Amino acid sequence: MTQIIPFVSEASQDERREWRDALPEALADIAVVKPFDTLTEEERVAARVAIVANPDPAQVAALPNLVWVQSLWAGVERLVTELPADGPLIVRLTDPQMAETMSEAVLAWTLYLHRDMPRYMAQQREGTWKGHTLLLPEERTVGVLGLGKLGSAAAQRLKSNGFRVLGWSRSPKSVDGIDCFHGAEGLTAVLAQTDISVLLMPLTAETHDLIGPSQLAQMKPGAALINFARGPIINETALLKALNEGPVGHAILDVFNEEPLPAGHPFWSHEKVTVLPHISAPTITSTASKIVAENIAHFFADGTIPPSVDRERGY
Amino acid sequence: MTQIIPFVSEASQDERREWRDALPEALADIAVVKPFDTLTEEERVAARVAIVANPDPAQVAALPNLVWVQSLWAGVERLVTELPADGPLIVRLTDPQMAETMSEAVLAWTLYLHRDMPRYMAQQREGTWKGHTLLLPEERTVGVLGLGKLGSAAAQRLKSNGFRVLGWSRSPKSVDGIDCFHGAEGLTAVLAQTDISVLLMPLTAETHDLIGPSQLAQMKPGAALINFARGPIINETALLKALNEGPVGHAILDVFNEEPLPAGHPFWSHEKVTVLPHISAPTITSTASKIVAENIAHFFADGTIPPSVDRERGY
Repeated sequence: MTQIIPFVSEASQDERREWRDALPEALADIAVVKPFDTLTEEERVAARVAIVANPDPAQVAALPNLVWVQSLWAGVERLVTELPADGPLIVRLTDPQMAETMSEAVLAWTLYLHRDMPRYMAQQREGTWKGHTLLLPEERTVGVLGLGKLGSAAAQRLKSNGFRVLGWSRSPKSVDGIDCFHGAEGLTAVLAQTDISVLLMPLTAETHDLIGPSQLAQMKPGAALINFARGPIINETALLKALNEGPVGHAILDVFNEEPLPAGHPFWSHEKVTVLPHISAPTITSTASKIVAENIAHFFADGTIPPSVDRERGY
Repeated sequence: MTQIIPFVSEASQDERREWRDALPEALADIAVVKPFDTLTEEERVAARVAIVANPDPAQVAALPNLVWVQSLWAGVERLVTELPADGPLIVRLTDPQMAETMSEAVLAWTLYLHRDMPRYMAQQREGTWKGHTLLLPEERTVGVLGLGKLGSAAAQRLKSNGFRVLGWSRSPKSVDGIDCFHGAEGLTAVLAQTDISVLLMPLTAETHDLIGPSQLAQMKPGAALINFARGPIINETALLKALNEGPVGHAILDVFNEEPLPAGHPFWSHEKVTVLPHISAPTITSTASKIVAENIAHFFADGTIPPSVDRERGY
């Protein structure tokens, strides 16, 4: 009997269209992938594994015999919060390509700040010809906050391109060649000496509002923040105040409390904010589909379930 | 007797101010550095070496016993053209830091294009939230035109960050790990397959107008050009046409026929042009001053003159 894998998603139309092409191809020898709304009652009951991308929890609940779900997103905070504790195991997408893509984004936007691109682009709009003193990369300290797979890879990429890099995580971690700090005191120490802080940690109860008024006040005058993690890790009201009154010199925000960022939000037109539409590390459908297919093939062969999310920890 | 080194420069006030601080400090044990207009008649006649940065040729000519001049700029085309053939030898600044700084600029602005920054910034101004498909760096071919110290370093930096890199030079050259092309046919082959072409060659009689209407027509539709070399290497009129009518998708221009770029020039407000005020690889005064001091100390010790410009070749 052909196995049917439900695909449950409220992702954007564009994203769903890409997956609807890539997944069936990658899984062709293993199973048939069907969008949730095309499933029969029998197929819903038979499903033991589903592929999800920002799913409606009610649709996941309508698959009563799921053992696990394979998320196509690295961030699973909505699944952890909204799926019942006795629901299916949650498997995050861990595609090695994603660490590469995220490191590239971190390097790209660090260089954007390091090479004064926002200032030169503002000068172009005004017709101003004026060079500014360039620092050597080793004179620029970048703090990478969050040292999981993405953070570790980003820290090493920055270092190999010449920057001074400090790492921070909630619990003690070590990353080859990087000075690592941890805990609340460590965060204070890192924020006080970094010119650019990059957020790369998961959103959990502990990291919600991690960067609030007192952390922002500890930053070096003119320092920049890059948020490539999740919006609620930064207190947006406090950030706006720190941009307007100091000390924050620039913020590159790829993630927000509400996405898409609502029309008229002050971030859109703030001269010290670069707004990105959640594009720092998009899943590359071709490489990710292969990983999903392998995970599901293993499960069908011998019942192996890939490492799943620790619901207590939240990631 | 204290040696006096004339400093002859029509560089910007800011640049001259930086050098007037850095040079005397670096040369403190060797000689006294004096701006041209503060020299006595006796000091002018005694000078056998001068430090120059975009000098007025008449001032250089007013130093009758110069054996060589140390340029603080890597580009010496004005000196080669305007100093008499029997004038002093011309020594370019070859600071290893400059190859690092230029490679960083090439990587930074390649990533700016690769990660669609101009498009996302235009979207922010319009309040548009929309992601675009991201290519892997190995799916992006970058052509580095000019394979001297700067070009070779830039090609290798791009390659170590994942891009597919092709090199081109007028005469055959090889760069470790890079597919290299040369001559007019090689240029056609490279332009036809690169998504981003980076100009890093010196301006000489042969490279003047190297990128003209027919070369621009050979580029891939939507391909981008980065000029970090010298303005006259690209035919600006032909470039404007290729931006308006195709095939060029974007140009990042750091150098121009006339600098500063004149007010009202169409490049300033062109949506497909990023204008930079000649900042890709500024000389870092601290490292460069040390190199200049060493060159001059060797000359005073035993008459050694560093390798100088081949006036036939022009660099």
